[in-house]
Amino acid sequence: MKVIVAQDLLEANDGIAGRNRLRWDSLGTLVVNLISAPGAGKTTLLEQVLEDVSRDLAVGVIEGDIYTCRDAERIARFKVATVQINTKGACHLDAGMIERAWQELELQCGKRLDLLFIENVGNLVCPAEFDLGEDIKVALLSVSEGSDKPAKYPLVFHQAQACVLTKVDLLPYTDFDLGAARQEIFGLNPKVAMFATSAKTGEGVEDFCRWLRQQVQVKREKKQDYDQRQG
Amino acid sequence: MKVIVAQDLLEANDGIAGRNRLRWDSLGTLVVNLISAPGAGKTTLLEQVLEDVSRDLAVGVIEGDIYTCRDAERIARFKVATVQINTKGACHLDAGMIERAWQELELQCGKRLDLLFIENVGNLVCPAEFDLGEDIKVALLSVSEGSDKPAKYPLVFHQAQACVLTKVDLLPYTDFDLGAARQEIFGLNPKVAMFATSAKTGEGVEDFCRWLRQQVQVKREKKQDYDQRQG
Repeated sequence: MKVIVAQDLLEANDGIAGRNRLRWDSLGTLVVNLISAPGAGKTTLLEQVLEDVSRDLAVGVIEGDIYTCRDAERIARFKVATVQINTKGACHLDAGMIERAWQELELQCGKRLDLLFIENVGNLVCPAEFDLGEDIKVALLSVSEGSDKPAKYPLVFHQAQACVLTKVDLLPYTDFDLGAARQEIFGLNPKVAMFATSAKTGEGVEDFCRWLRQQVQVKREKKQDYDQRQG
Repeated sequence: MKVIVAQDLLEANDGIAGRNRLRWDSLGTLVVNLISAPGAGKTTLLEQVLEDVSRDLAVGVIEGDIYTCRDAERIARFKVATVQINTKGACHLDAGMIERAWQELELQCGKRLDLLFIENVGNLVCPAEFDLGEDIKVALLSVSEGSDKPAKYPLVFHQAQACVLTKVDLLPYTDFDLGAARQEIFGLNPKVAMFATSAKTGEGVEDFCRWLRQQVQVKREKKQDYDQRQG
């Protein structure tokens, strides 16, 4: 009984996620879902990425938090269209929340976006189970969390197209084993793009931005192909 | 409909939690539920606490992880009765899992326990919603997660009898604001016992152990009172 109900909820979610995906495919908007434990540095990475990509790309942000609008307030200075979702207790974003936030975002920005970031609720477990219609999941892992975490929370690392190790400036002060972590993550997901970053020193952020720009370009070309075929 | 189903699950959980609580009250066993984000240092704190309390108290441990038995393997060297729960995807422990693990633990140790630790799944959201029948919730927050987290994940900090700030040796390398964090936590929960600890330097662990021993003593006295009244 419980399983059936959970299954129903997930199926309903997947239906809306499919609708979101079709919408973003027709617009050629690349959608990136940022997932990590609380405090791994999603908002800080996003701030540094926006510094780069918002110079020449049309970017939007949907912020997910259980409570507070602190993250949206931090993003506000970049003058990109931003919507804050407060889940009021729910431990993850679902496709329905994103569909409503997207309607709000479209009203706000009034132009086609190249790139939409969704910052999920800080939780390494539940967000991985809910498809939002995104193109790319990015899993963040702070080195202060320990190198044993990928094996303990495998789903998100298995699903992610990119994995960003954050706070690598703390490596000398932790027992994080970079080699072991990489090996575990590649074991779960051999094709993942891996980045080692530090918001403090800026290390690795440029590489990650370059990779994101490539993905934006791929999505744009897909959209052009589709439009040409439609004549 | 969704709400009713969720309510049913929580009510069923609370029924089993009540049964667990009665059982532990009748035995005078103090039960401590450790809750934090992944990588805040629950297992490391537990190792340091066991070093102290297992010298003269009868202690048991229930380890909760989605996958792997790594935490139980780390605890094994203390020769305390330990059961590992693998939730296989579930993002929290519930009272039913604990009831079954407790039956296993009782078979293993064959004596009355003074103190039972339950290490929950690494998740700052969902575990706070499920009563396990414990006496005490301890919320851990690593300083590398940032001082804004209590306001963003208020439920667990509101419910906890103790809050342990971990990895304070990293304070010089982070922008964690200790004063602001304390203020936010006390704002959510004025009566919480607060500890600032470092597994690396050992700072604060002795204070936390002393507080735990006081709670064990309180529970023991309650049990003695109860037994005397029963004559």
